[in-house]
Amino acid sequence: MSFALDPRLAADSIAVGDFTLSQLRLMDDARFPWLILVPRIAGARELIDLDEGDRTSLLGEVTVVGRMLEALIAPDKLNVAALGNVVSQLHVHVVARYANDAAWPQPVWGNGERVAYALDAREALLARLRDALRDALVG
Amino acid sequence: MSFALDPRLAADSIAVGDFTLSQLRLMDDARFPWLILVPRIAGARELIDLDEGDRTSLLGEVTVVGRMLEALIAPDKLNVAALGNVVSQLHVHVVARYANDAAWPQPVWGNGERVAYALDAREALLARLRDALRDALVG
Repeated sequence: MSFALDPRLAADSIAVGDFTLSQLRLMDDARFPWLILVPRIAGARELIDLDEGDRTSLLGEVTVVGRMLEALIAPDKLNVAALGNVVSQLHVHVVARYANDAAWPQPVWGNGERVAYALDAREALLARLRDALRDALVG
Repeated sequence: MSFALDPRLAADSIAVGDFTLSQLRLMDDARFPWLILVPRIAGARELIDLDEGDRTSLLGEVTVVGRMLEALIAPDKLNVAALGNVVSQLHVHVVARYANDAAWPQPVWGNGERVAYALDAREALLARLRDALRDALVG
């Protein structure tokens, strides 16, 4: 079985770039700066089912993404989660939260309706994220 | 600064036992088998602020807890999350979810009202968790 991105994740998010293990994607929801990491491992479902090397790599990539968000947009809090109740393909959310955002202090999942980015705003954010990812991968 | 458990976490959960880094606690909510891991690190707030050794240890402890829950109660899905929007002291949730539970497929956080366990049921579950933790720490 080869890896294929779940079609619901593909529909709701845009590729930012690739880490060694995971693809980094931006959720198309202008309410929250919301990234997901999708390890390119066919059939992966639970974090705890990864072998130790992949699990450590994934945590390292989560850490890089969290630090990118802190450096770029200084959130009040990061929310990091592997849920998978709706889309079971393993993916880790890294969401930048603010005390005045649309859901605070509630979690973002299942909270209200997604608001797609205006195209210009989306492209501008993607450009910043891609620059930061390139710097992180070089550094 | 020495470590002290946040009083809200202390009020809402019961100690199961201790890993090397974290205290394992059972949330007193009979709707969901819901554990939290609290690293005993003073001032810790974000997962990504831990040093690499502690971060790896915490992920290892999360993995043990997830496997304990799978072995004991065979959930349909694990939800693993570090949120901290309400209680900023770093804690990682490991929640056993079922497709027929009170919140599925929504997340458990901020979802309805907590239902405290009946004392007998709580003590029975704690005994099973403590046995499993002891086995995991020995194994």
